[in-house]
Amino acid sequence: MTDRYRTLRTTIDERMPRWTEELVEFCRIPSEASDIGALRAAAGWTAERLRRLGATVDIVEVPGQPEVPPLVVGEIGEGPRTLTMVQHYDVQPAAPHALWTTPAYEPAVRDGRLYARGATDNKGEMLSRGWGLEAYLEAFGALPCRIRFLIEGEEESGSAHLDALLDERADLRRADGALIEGGGVDALGRPVLTAGARGGVSVELVCRTLKYDAHSSLATMLPSAPIRLVLALASLYDADGVPNWPGLETGARMPTEAQLAAIAALPTEDLDATKAEYGVSAFIGGREGTAAWHADAFAVTCNIQGLWSGYTGPGGNTILPAEAHARLDMRIIPDQDPATVMAALRVHLDAQGFPDIEMQTFEGDEPAYWSDIADPIVDAAAAASEAVFGQPALRYVSMSGIVPMYQVCAHHGVPMTTLGGATEDCRAHAPDENYPLSGAADAAEVTARFLDAFAEQG
Amino acid sequence: MTDRYRTLRTTIDERMPRWTEELVEFCRIPSEASDIGALRAAAGWTAERLRRLGATVDIVEVPGQPEVPPLVVGEIGEGPRTLTMVQHYDVQPAAPHALWTTPAYEPAVRDGRLYARGATDNKGEMLSRGWGLEAYLEAFGALPCRIRFLIEGEEESGSAHLDALLDERADLRRADGALIEGGGVDALGRPVLTAGARGGVSVELVCRTLKYDAHSSLATMLPSAPIRLVLALASLYDADGVPNWPGLETGARMPTEAQLAAIAALPTEDLDATKAEYGVSAFIGGREGTAAWHADAFAVTCNIQGLWSGYTGPGGNTILPAEAHARLDMRIIPDQDPATVMAALRVHLDAQGFPDIEMQTFEGDEPAYWSDIADPIVDAAAAASEAVFGQPALRYVSMSGIVPMYQVCAHHGVPMTTLGGATEDCRAHAPDENYPLSGAADAAEVTARFLDAFAEQG
Repeated sequence: MTDRYRTLRTTIDERMPRWTEELVEFCRIPSEASDIGALRAAAGWTAERLRRLGATVDIVEVPGQPEVPPLVVGEIGEGPRTLTMVQHYDVQPAAPHALWTTPAYEPAVRDGRLYARGATDNKGEMLSRGWGLEAYLEAFGALPCRIRFLIEGEEESGSAHLDALLDERADLRRADGALIEGGGVDALGRPVLTAGARGGVSVELVCRTLKYDAHSSLATMLPSAPIRLVLALASLYDADGVPNWPGLETGARMPTEAQLAAIAALPTEDLDATKAEYGVSAFIGGREGTAAWHADAFAVTCNIQGLWSGYTGPGGNTILPAEAHARLDMRIIPDQDPATVMAALRVHLDAQGFPDIEMQTFEGDEPAYWSDIADPIVDAAAAASEAVFGQPALRYVSMSGIVPMYQVCAHHGVPMTTLGGATEDCRAHAPDENYPLSGAADAAEVTARFLDAFAEQG
Repeated sequence: MTDRYRTLRTTIDERMPRWTEELVEFCRIPSEASDIGALRAAAGWTAERLRRLGATVDIVEVPGQPEVPPLVVGEIGEGPRTLTMVQHYDVQPAAPHALWTTPAYEPAVRDGRLYARGATDNKGEMLSRGWGLEAYLEAFGALPCRIRFLIEGEEESGSAHLDALLDERADLRRADGALIEGGGVDALGRPVLTAGARGGVSVELVCRTLKYDAHSSLATMLPSAPIRLVLALASLYDADGVPNWPGLETGARMPTEAQLAAIAALPTEDLDATKAEYGVSAFIGGREGTAAWHADAFAVTCNIQGLWSGYTGPGGNTILPAEAHARLDMRIIPDQDPATVMAALRVHLDAQGFPDIEMQTFEGDEPAYWSDIADPIVDAAAAASEAVFGQPALRYVSMSGIVPMYQVCAHHGVPMTTLGGATEDCRAHAPDENYPLSGAADAAEVTARFLDAFAEQG
């Protein structure tokens, strides 16, 4: 470590206790999609924090739509190059609350980790970047480039209004590079960098067979909503649970040589770590080694995130349910069109004999976006990350998460990367989500070091 | 109507307002299986009501098991013949509460019907029989036979302790005839009599694929609990939703000639009424006319009464669920053995590649029971019912409901029947369960008239 960055790290380590309290405060705000009050509180908190950092803050609203959470734009620093940091202040729902060791919105520190909904995704990761800037300013006086935070409030529900918000100011999509919202290390501590983001298509299938729930004795005659839905859903998968309906992969771009090479270089022991973490002996579809990494990058998914019908309380209730619901989320890749995928699902359900099963939208859809995996911005992220974590960086084609980089970067082909200090067991989106505080400090340092490398590339 | 029964009916009609208040009071007790306090309150209310009728009451407990709701035994009347009236004071869970027009445990009268959980099944039906006895005593001074009420508190959850409770007193299963808990008229007002009861087998299928919920991006690799459960469930049904797994019908007794003749005599317009009531255009498996009645009597069902996995709240939550659950209830017929059916399901799931899917018991199982559809007790019920409703009675092989007549009647081959005033739109077990008050009065009259016919058969 050079003296330049030793000072920086000292600043970071000294400030971590206070910053941790700050993250605790931020995570107390239950900024779920269903709670516009909490979303606006989180936006206000975010704006205030950016101002304390020294940023100019602009709260961008969709005109005449106060129910849409605003885009918080924070700008700071000078220089020929501009870096966009894409973040969000909304969080996934914390339910089921009973599965949390401590309440989702009462942040608690245990064993060096902060447990709360949003601790990692994305409040902790957002603040880590801000802390990196704060430490950089403290250590070196001025930032080496222009930074633009784009912090939205609908990321977890599909960024439905992000395009409209970005359209409000002509310059918001102009940049020389972008950081995707998060990033971290694999199970062995190696930094993971990604140059792409999945897109997403979500749909709720609703089956109604009866005017109202019948007594289950009528199962000799009456059509059952859960049985019909089960049969429709089963038609979407092969025997191993791999989705195989026609049209799911329509429009998918072929991998580049550089992408295939990056995948071939990925370590298979990380796959074993994933198996161990979730307690599984094998992946679906016999996907092992490079084939598993290939699926991770390119396989279009069709996940059942929620399924419900009839009586689900304690004991039993002998009803024949009139309705059944399944929420599916599909993770698409470039150049798939969400509407085309959805239309193909409709055609498939009709062809399988389920024209009566309704498809309802429950959140916004997003196209995917890849930038060049060999772009210099990824090299800059690699250099900063390798310096902090002391291990060679791994390059992934794409985040497996759905983030709205298409909306931010596709207009001008802005190259992008991830960087950060999250670990694989952060449980983003799940109960007991947590953020390792040492990883937070590392993320701050990586951010600061990256600024230098990025600025030098201009 | 003879003068004898004119007086009786006048008494019934005069007392209906007071009796309705009594039913309202009874239905306020939320005697669901999960609430032993409410169950004991309902048992106490029942005992007190029987005492007011003039019955000798015996509260039978399973020794040393205060968590088991007691059997309330009420005895009244003298004569050479004994009639058992099998009833229950527990109710199905009222959830989902949001689907009720008025709260399930705040009984409300609208358009001549009392709406509440238990209004028909079985609090209303139980009281109607008591009211019939009260009117008979008022009109004629003494009952023509011995009556024994057997009123349990676990009927809706499988009567797990009824055998043990009946064993507590040697004479409790001795009788010359028995009334099954309810009964009523079809959509055209024709009395429906049944001489059998389905048995039931219940099982919760539990699929666990992960230690905890994963982020749905891992759907490229990790096995999904809801997808696995969907595939397992789909293996239980044909394309039309008719269960077809090997072993479901193991042990089923062949229909008798008398049963087949009874089925052939059933009116197909009732089937149309059922379709209209539930808003369906066709029954499953192409079952129409006599084939539908045959299924009603003899087809073994495999109903999905509840199904759940992952996130089911508002909005979405991009998780890959670690667990999925389905509760099945199967309605079996004589001479099927519940344990054998359950074992066959296990064999089927294993053979289909789902040995990991657990089978958990959630309520008691019961064998089915049929008595002779041509027994004189059915003639007595027919005579009483035809006199009150003015239409010829229909004879069904079996109730489609699961009631514990095997436990009560099989030891001594006691013949049995139904009778009552419920209508097809009473919504038993469903939200907005209701009991037509005119039907309640009719049920009381039918009960009283039946006593004469039954006593004369001695």
